[in-house]
Amino acid sequence: MRRMSSSTRPGASSARPHIVIIGCGFGGLEATRALQRAQVDITVIEKTNHHLFQPLLYQVATAGLAAPSIAAPVRVLFRNYPNVTTLLGEVSGVDPDERMVRLNDGSQIGYDHLIVAAGATHSYFGRDEWAANAPGLKTLADAFDIRRRVLLSFEAAERESDPLRRRAKLTFAVIGAGPTGVEMAGTMAEIARHTLQGEFRHIDPGSAEVLLIEGGGRVLQAMPEVLSQKALVQLQKLGVEVRLNSRVTGIDATGLTTQLADGSTQRIDSHCIVWAAGVAASPLGRMLGEATGAEVDRAGRVKVEPDLSLPGHPEISVVGDLAAAMSHAPGKEPRPVPGVSPGAKQMGRAAAANILARIAGRATQPFRYSDYGNLATIGRNSAVVDLTTPFGHVRMSGRIAWQFWLFAHVYFLIGFRNRLVVLMDWASAYWSFQRYARVVPDLPAGVPPETKG
Amino acid sequence: MRRMSSSTRPGASSARPHIVIIGCGFGGLEATRALQRAQVDITVIEKTNHHLFQPLLYQVATAGLAAPSIAAPVRVLFRNYPNVTTLLGEVSGVDPDERMVRLNDGSQIGYDHLIVAAGATHSYFGRDEWAANAPGLKTLADAFDIRRRVLLSFEAAERESDPLRRRAKLTFAVIGAGPTGVEMAGTMAEIARHTLQGEFRHIDPGSAEVLLIEGGGRVLQAMPEVLSQKALVQLQKLGVEVRLNSRVTGIDATGLTTQLADGSTQRIDSHCIVWAAGVAASPLGRMLGEATGAEVDRAGRVKVEPDLSLPGHPEISVVGDLAAAMSHAPGKEPRPVPGVSPGAKQMGRAAAANILARIAGRATQPFRYSDYGNLATIGRNSAVVDLTTPFGHVRMSGRIAWQFWLFAHVYFLIGFRNRLVVLMDWASAYWSFQRYARVVPDLPAGVPPETKG
Repeated sequence: MRRMSSSTRPGASSARPHIVIIGCGFGGLEATRALQRAQVDITVIEKTNHHLFQPLLYQVATAGLAAPSIAAPVRVLFRNYPNVTTLLGEVSGVDPDERMVRLNDGSQIGYDHLIVAAGATHSYFGRDEWAANAPGLKTLADAFDIRRRVLLSFEAAERESDPLRRRAKLTFAVIGAGPTGVEMAGTMAEIARHTLQGEFRHIDPGSAEVLLIEGGGRVLQAMPEVLSQKALVQLQKLGVEVRLNSRVTGIDATGLTTQLADGSTQRIDSHCIVWAAGVAASPLGRMLGEATGAEVDRAGRVKVEPDLSLPGHPEISVVGDLAAAMSHAPGKEPRPVPGVSPGAKQMGRAAAANILARIAGRATQPFRYSDYGNLATIGRNSAVVDLTTPFGHVRMSGRIAWQFWLFAHVYFLIGFRNRLVVLMDWASAYWSFQRYARVVPDLPAGVPPETKG
Repeated sequence: MRRMSSSTRPGASSARPHIVIIGCGFGGLEATRALQRAQVDITVIEKTNHHLFQPLLYQVATAGLAAPSIAAPVRVLFRNYPNVTTLLGEVSGVDPDERMVRLNDGSQIGYDHLIVAAGATHSYFGRDEWAANAPGLKTLADAFDIRRRVLLSFEAAERESDPLRRRAKLTFAVIGAGPTGVEMAGTMAEIARHTLQGEFRHIDPGSAEVLLIEGGGRVLQAMPEVLSQKALVQLQKLGVEVRLNSRVTGIDATGLTTQLADGSTQRIDSHCIVWAAGVAASPLGRMLGEATGAEVDRAGRVKVEPDLSLPGHPEISVVGDLAAAMSHAPGKEPRPVPGVSPGAKQMGRAAAANILARIAGRATQPFRYSDYGNLATIGRNSAVVDLTTPFGHVRMSGRIAWQFWLFAHVYFLIGFRNRLVVLMDWASAYWSFQRYARVVPDLPAGVPPETKG
């Protein structure tokens, strides 16, 4: 790495602009692709070795898909882009004056233009101690952790003779009824009601309770109210018990406490809690804010100019979940860009185009988000879709929405092979009610103490 | 678990014999299958939640297959056997007088007949401190560990500016040239020469050295000498440097030391070492020996009677890698059963049949091993096969042997879906030279310190 300091970075001799891209999620990947044929040198810094197709991460967590089906090695993605250098490493800071990115191994790398696409992580609203007993779902490691907890909770229940403790081990709680919470709860209910049927001798997995706990008054708040209502009915039909207006006030190794709107509190004994309530931008957002003076919102997202660059730092762009960006449609009020993958992809492409404009001495363009709508899956044959078309909204729910969701997601998966395998896995899961990836690799170390007995 | 002590174990009321099977590898699985329709109750105790198809584990370690492709959940395998209870747990001991199996959570379970099929683990010949820097390959967790080390060693080399340190990070050492060592070395050479080509900007992955270090005078010592010779040539053609008559005398975080036949020593700097040299029986072997007085050999295997039961304890059978068993063909000298999966499977079936014979008051049969030969894969289009047929030996090597090996392994994989996916993965790897499962889930924690810089 030392040889990659600004003086000797790749491309320095060719005098081509050097663009550094931090993160290879949807935003970083699209930005890199948009720059692949430009006369620039690109360095992509990513802290894992893969691009993750996050919309299907819940399927890895619920044992429906193997990890490699939704993760593509970054080096393979960029193998045919000779102007792209991939760097496996974690960014510890940015020095805007020196135009340097610092990595946590102490090395640094210079840039002419910087795209920060470091994404988001889960937030416990200042209660980080909850993380140990209520993992969130952002990375493959998270997904494996949740898969282990879900499957081993049933195993622990099978071995538990005390009825109360057995009931707690058959109680699964998902906190937060956004898209991730809804699909996790729906799929966990499907596992309990269908996948595991007939496999245990001392418990009935179908008697498991799957709770979806939401502080607000409806599920899928980003959706139109009529679709929230339909999603609620579908969740209940799948066997999920939805508790609205329930604020979580405590989480420990044996359960959680909620507070209802009337101030009363409730204790729920559970050994498997999934956190799907809070999302916060990568800590890099606040670092950038401090270093450049850019404003950072409550969720840690950096407020960007209409062209996605930072105020006073046109050479730095922020895209994706890390950006508090607005969509600027001609003749309309600017509107916030939602934190969804099409938003990140479009921002990545727009930031790349604006950098090329700057290099060419042209004016940059304000970002405009093309909203194709919103969709969320719930479980077997269950989804809600709110499509935005030039002729207005098209709303679907139930089986047809689920099929639409499925093909849309498979279509956007990276790689022909992955699409085929995911479709096969889904077809086989659909017909057999089985789930392919029910493997817990490192059992002894991974068993939480309270499920061991 | 407490309710499963001998007085209340499942089947106690029906007065059907209770058979406990420890382990669900090839031996335990076949024994359970052989007993599925018998008038007995069976409890299978397995410490992971899956049956592992170990012959393809090296493919998970070398990123060719996803873990779920070679692992089937134990509960799914036995779902349709109502007389089988599956117990996820680890056995800590056996009490032959009380006829009790003790689990490490303190609970115990009674048996009328016991089949111990706990398998083998890797052995460092008393040098357990080597394990940290030279992992073996027995479990999925091992495979993930090795996958991470192999892939991250190339990443560390890409970031290393010092030529000597870079060379060490591009040196891969496999210790032991048995079947596992040969296939690991061959596949690692393929990854370096083909899979990673064109993906790095500062190193040529093809310049990596893959060393196969063997204490004996030839590779694949269980094979006829002519096939060892052919395997050696194939390994060298794939780019593996084979070092015979090299005894490993030290392993640390930065490399290993070998001693040649002439007493001279050699230092090899390497950050990725795989241990494929020693196999030892599960510690349960010695425990059983102490508890029953049965003889235990140097490798920790329990010497069994011709019918696979323990001397003085006809109600306990030992099968698979844990048993030092002999094959008793009529009119021939007894011969040791090799530690291969067909041996374990046949022993599992034989032990089950002998238990049913005992229950019915019939005489037990001595075990006879049907030897169909021996096969080992080396890498792309490379394998050696030594088939035993009624008309003598059929020996193959190269592409035809590889095709034979491939279809034999896919045929014995569990589940139609797995066969299809594995074939697809192989077809795609074969044509594209790519490997599907190049995903390292938990990077930051997993990076060994010496590859971080």
